[in-house]
Amino acid sequence: MARASKLPVAVLGATGAVGQRFVQLLAAHPWFEIAVVTGSERSVGRRYGEVTRWILPEAIPAAVAGLTVQPTEQVAEVPIAFSALPTEQARALEPQWARAGVFVCSNASAFRMDPLVPLLIPEVNPEHLGIVERQQRERGWRGAIITNPNCATITLVIPLKPLHDAFGVQRLMVTTLQAVSGAGYPGVASLDILDNLIPNIADGGEEAKIESEPRKLLGRLVDGSFQDAPLGISAQVTRVPVLDGHTAAVAVAFARRPAPDEAIACLREWRAPEPVRSLPSAPPAPVVVRDEPDRPQPRRDRDLYGGMGTTVGRVRSCSLFDLRFVALSHNTIRGAAGGAILNAELLVAQGIVG
Amino acid sequence: MARASKLPVAVLGATGAVGQRFVQLLAAHPWFEIAVVTGSERSVGRRYGEVTRWILPEAIPAAVAGLTVQPTEQVAEVPIAFSALPTEQARALEPQWARAGVFVCSNASAFRMDPLVPLLIPEVNPEHLGIVERQQRERGWRGAIITNPNCATITLVIPLKPLHDAFGVQRLMVTTLQAVSGAGYPGVASLDILDNLIPNIADGGEEAKIESEPRKLLGRLVDGSFQDAPLGISAQVTRVPVLDGHTAAVAVAFARRPAPDEAIACLREWRAPEPVRSLPSAPPAPVVVRDEPDRPQPRRDRDLYGGMGTTVGRVRSCSLFDLRFVALSHNTIRGAAGGAILNAELLVAQGIVG
Amino acid sequence: MARASKLPVAVLGATGAVGQRFVQLLAAHPWFEIAVVTGSERSVGRRYGEVTRWILPEAIPAAVAGLTVQPTEQVAEVPIAFSALPTEQARALEPQWARAGVFVCSNASAFRMDPLVPLLIPEVNPEHLGIVERQQRERGWRGAIITNPNCATITLVIPLKPLHDAFGVQRLMVTTLQAVSGAGYPGVASLDILDNLIPNIADGGEEAKIESEPRKLLGRLVDGSFQDAPLGISAQVTRVPVLDGHTAAVAVAFARRPAPDEAIACLREWRAPEPVRSLPSAPPAPVVVRDEPDRPQPRRDRDLYGGMGTTVGRVRSCSLFDLRFVALSHNTIRGAAGGAILNAELLVAQGIVG
Amino acid sequence: MARASKLPVAVLGATGAVGQRFVQLLAAHPWFEIAVVTGSERSVGRRYGEVTRWILPEAIPAAVAGLTVQPTEQVAEVPIAFSALPTEQARALEPQWARAGVFVCSNASAFRMDPLVPLLIPEVNPEHLGIVERQQRERGWRGAIITNPNCATITLVIPLKPLHDAFGVQRLMVTTLQAVSGAGYPGVASLDILDNLIPNIADGGEEAKIESEPRKLLGRLVDGSFQDAPLGISAQVTRVPVLDGHTAAVAVAFARRPAPDEAIACLREWRAPEPVRSLPSAPPAPVVVRDEPDRPQPRRDRDLYGGMGTTVGRVRSCSLFDLRFVALSHNTIRGAAGGAILNAELLVAQGIVG
Repeated sequence: MARASKLPVAVLGATGAVGQRFVQLLAAHPWFEIAVVTGSERSVGRRYGEVTRWILPEAIPAAVAGLTVQPTEQVAEVPIAFSALPTEQARALEPQWARAGVFVCSNASAFRMDPLVPLLIPEVNPEHLGIVERQQRERGWRGAIITNPNCATITLVIPLKPLHDAFGVQRLMVTTLQAVSGAGYPGVASLDILDNLIPNIADGGEEAKIESEPRKLLGRLVDGSFQDAPLGISAQVTRVPVLDGHTAAVAVAFARRPAPDEAIACLREWRAPEPVRSLPSAPPAPVVVRDEPDRPQPRRDRDLYGGMGTTVGRVRSCSLFDLRFVALSHNTIRGAAGGAILNAELLVAQGIVG
Repeated sequence: MARASKLPVAVLGATGAVGQRFVQLLAAHPWFEIAVVTGSERSVGRRYGEVTRWILPEAIPAAVAGLTVQPTEQVAEVPIAFSALPTEQARALEPQWARAGVFVCSNASAFRMDPLVPLLIPEVNPEHLGIVERQQRERGWRGAIITNPNCATITLVIPLKPLHDAFGVQRLMVTTLQAVSGAGYPGVASLDILDNLIPNIADGGEEAKIESEPRKLLGRLVDGSFQDAPLGISAQVTRVPVLDGHTAAVAVAFARRPAPDEAIACLREWRAPEPVRSLPSAPPAPVVVRDEPDRPQPRRDRDLYGGMGTTVGRVRSCSLFDLRFVALSHNTIRGAAGGAILNAELLVAQGIVG
Repeated sequence: MARASKLPVAVLGATGAVGQRFVQLLAAHPWFEIAVVTGSERSVGRRYGEVTRWILPEAIPAAVAGLTVQPTEQVAEVPIAFSALPTEQARALEPQWARAGVFVCSNASAFRMDPLVPLLIPEVNPEHLGIVERQQRERGWRGAIITNPNCATITLVIPLKPLHDAFGVQRLMVTTLQAVSGAGYPGVASLDILDNLIPNIADGGEEAKIESEPRKLLGRLVDGSFQDAPLGISAQVTRVPVLDGHTAAVAVAFARRPAPDEAIACLREWRAPEPVRSLPSAPPAPVVVRDEPDRPQPRRDRDLYGGMGTTVGRVRSCSLFDLRFVALSHNTIRGAAGGAILNAELLVAQGIVG
Repeated sequence: MARASKLPVAVLGATGAVGQRFVQLLAAHPWFEIAVVTGSERSVGRRYGEVTRWILPEAIPAAVAGLTVQPTEQVAEVPIAFSALPTEQARALEPQWARAGVFVCSNASAFRMDPLVPLLIPEVNPEHLGIVERQQRERGWRGAIITNPNCATITLVIPLKPLHDAFGVQRLMVTTLQAVSGAGYPGVASLDILDNLIPNIADGGEEAKIESEPRKLLGRLVDGSFQDAPLGISAQVTRVPVLDGHTAAVAVAFARRPAPDEAIACLREWRAPEPVRSLPSAPPAPVVVRDEPDRPQPRRDRDLYGGMGTTVGRVRSCSLFDLRFVALSHNTIRGAAGGAILNAELLVAQGIVG
């Protein structure tokens, strides 16, 4: 896909932790170019480079540093907006942008479970984009809202997809070990996490997302409505002293029990359908299975494929369920900004935007 | 219990990480006094204070620092020996001490699953000491070997005990988040664990222990033989950047499903039987249940009752099993040296030794 | 010193990190008893145990948990108040308490360099309390304000005191490696400090304190006025991923150069004058010198003498200055709450309060 | 510089931490290609990919993974060898390789202070390569040994170079905060460094290197002999819980005192001489000065220019010396493998090898 010029995009809530990831990942994007950044009252009217306490290793991209921060309340004339807004703001403002004709690729949780909004992982359920037309019609929007899942859900669901197609996932137990960057900035206090861990996130809210979102993601779009996959899911989350990279320890019961080798082969052979696999941010393979007994590890595996890959290890039989494995992906790239960008790329590739 | 004088004890493998915990905890013990420390060839004949790279915060107890390290091969004339030996050495040498009349309270895994050796948690299965007489008779030993469980097993089994008695544990899934001190010293390299975690310990060996030891611990001694409890257990272990304190995220299915409040009440009401509850190292209550949504945490809860308490939190229903909770205890105190000392105290209180 | 009953005390700003240390350390104090806790508007009128996000390992002392939080603006009828107020509040409110007759032992920096306020370390400059009478007279206060130094200053000055008396400190360079607890709670974000360090604190403000406070502490009270010691001091501070315990790497030039052995002997022989050495919170010796090449270390040395001791190591010659050493003490105990409590004990022992 | 084909090179001691960095950095090198990897007896004869416990995030480069590990004792026919050997092995074996005609670019300390061996930082003292001819003649070698400095020395000396040329460095005090990767693998035990720091490295040996190497580096080659720069240096090193990146807090006295702005301008204007600045691994500028009050930080600045840049911050006046600043560079790239590769590139560019 060659384009004469890049599509201008907005980043909503651009000064926060996920907003910064959007800015970083879009800096050299082949299709998109940041034209607008929005922020809170404190930042509006000032240069992005001035008001942003940049927490990523590389410097702020120069072209963005010079942009003046706009109020999120004022919809910009761009085809696509990436939203890193907090839930409540997302709930209030994303519909305004969609109504005005913008395709909002949102990392917020506000509309994920909305029956007219796709909860999208391009490798997993690209056909869910089929709901967009109905969303536009029923809501009276010229644009639309497209969401990506919770950062821990995505670590879990990507390897589940080919296993579900092949063997039929029925029940799963998951314990997550999540990185501090998932809480944003300043987020987790060092006094709370050095030499420590916390066995909860958002007072049960994170577990509720992990127990519900996979049903929608692995479900089907039938006659214009989502039918959830009938999975039983039970989750325990923890926060650990890791900077980036969520780890999920998973046990799964299937309709047909695969031998570990079958499951490994299934994961290794899996490729995203076209056009997903050719999108600029798509990893060469959605999942890489490691044979070493001590992988995946967050620091050593989170940057696989620019942070868009998912690493699976310790695939083995489970005496109570059928299969156990450990999955890992980068929570602020694959699980947030990078995932939303991949969603936008799919919108363009399918001609919905562009 | 008042004693005229303290019982002399030996610490086998006294220079390592667990050996140091024995030395620290026994320094001010009301019943026991360290008379002998043994070590490897490198240390034998030199002063303990010289050869030990002491890794605990407090200074080496002066009385022990001056002891000359003895070879473990040479059995000392003491009624009790605490063993912090590596597995292979334990397998070779602990029987020699037992044969010569010493009661070996061992933290090693070598004999834990031996059908004639008690795997003992005084609050959980004190009646298992009944096997000792048979052990002595069949092995021809004047002393005996008594073992304590794996450091992660113990975190799991202590809260399971009252629940098992009340509701009948049938199946359980556990994911552990284990501290680096569990690997001894030098143990886990900082390059492997800073900003990282490792989803395995001992290449599956730790999980095998957690999946087998609880069956023996919750089993019964019937006509002089152990009958395992028929539990289904599936475990996933991880190593996290925490110094001390193992955390276990647990889901349990019972014969009779308790409401979370019932389970909490059961845990809170549970007390160890006499004489266990009056032993010097016994915690006032085996389990403390915390109501806060973010507890237990290793740094904030591991030192409960001098490191001998177990903290349980997040007790709630599970959609797939019956109950979920998170348990935590100090792995080198409750889960190793302190546990073995409590075992020795029970031996004395029951008149088996002393 | 035997007292019929304990003195009632207030803790100002009791819900924060240093406030919690006051509460913890005073819980079992032989002379003092917490009668009043004050907090911000958000907390006033509610129980301390409810409004405090307790970050220390042990539980909130029950007697304090039940106290109702009072507004700091309302002076209580207590002889002593411990202040953990932020600087600006301390500046506004501590004089009100002093005027009303309360002896305010403050950890705030607001009045440390006030020419009428003692900046006190009992082992170092107990005679500075002589200014109190003049402070009361000139300010028209029935109580008084007594301050303790910055948490890094105190690590530095305690070992300097005997060296200064013996050899005459002239110039010193110091680089500190400071714990995150020094920034309060939530304080340092984990995203800023995991696998990282920060080469500044308070934008140069911490260095300014370290470069000025020692001059007052090692100075003299002459004819009712403080005469600063004429020291040249240059400081570089850093924040490191350590929970508690500030480390200071120091190089000192003296009027008379001591050999390292002389300096070590001087530090080891030093004892606080009476009545300081008999105060309940006074460490047995102000400084412990370690011979091991790798000490002091924060985790292993910060709790010396209940966190009131200072550990010195690596005492050696310096090719540019005369002596190099590394000092360490617990920043929220010796360097904050514990230091202020020791100050209050001295007030009582000298009959100024009580 | 365009080459028809790449020069084959050897990596000596390729399986360790620094050896792995060599392998990683050389994988895509435009001039060099790894033809030989050597290792210890345990590894010889087996595939590199099998015997290496790879600790870097990216996978082992496939071309190297398949190489059979050779014994270091057997000199290979390559023009250049990169040495990551331990000191004693380097002392014994590097001369054998040099004698046989190989130019050994060594990261070992064995020959750094040898009066016939260049201690080389291309941006700092490229003219020191002039000693090579004399080294070859006097030692009877067809190759030569070229060394790079200690990983902390290099962080310090790079920013000193332009300041020395402009203002004449006379004395300097330095405190380092060094990353755990500097100790190799397994290196620093997690039990020694989590929530802790260690105020020493190699029992004073690291400080001795930092106090001596800069004199040679900033010295001159006069009539075929090195004349050390007459600098007074005093160092205190510390190990901190940081993975990569050494930080140095520096105070410098000059012959002519620069204002901070002059020093900053001097650092910013400095460029390496040709041909150094055009070498493939040379950073665009040797030093980047940051204005933010809280930089440099290891995690956020170590990867500047692929880990070959040096970041300086907090440039300011010092009340006792003339100037204070904080410098940071990547210890296993700029300070080890990357530095040695840059040295080799200079050898090629100057026609000494090729």
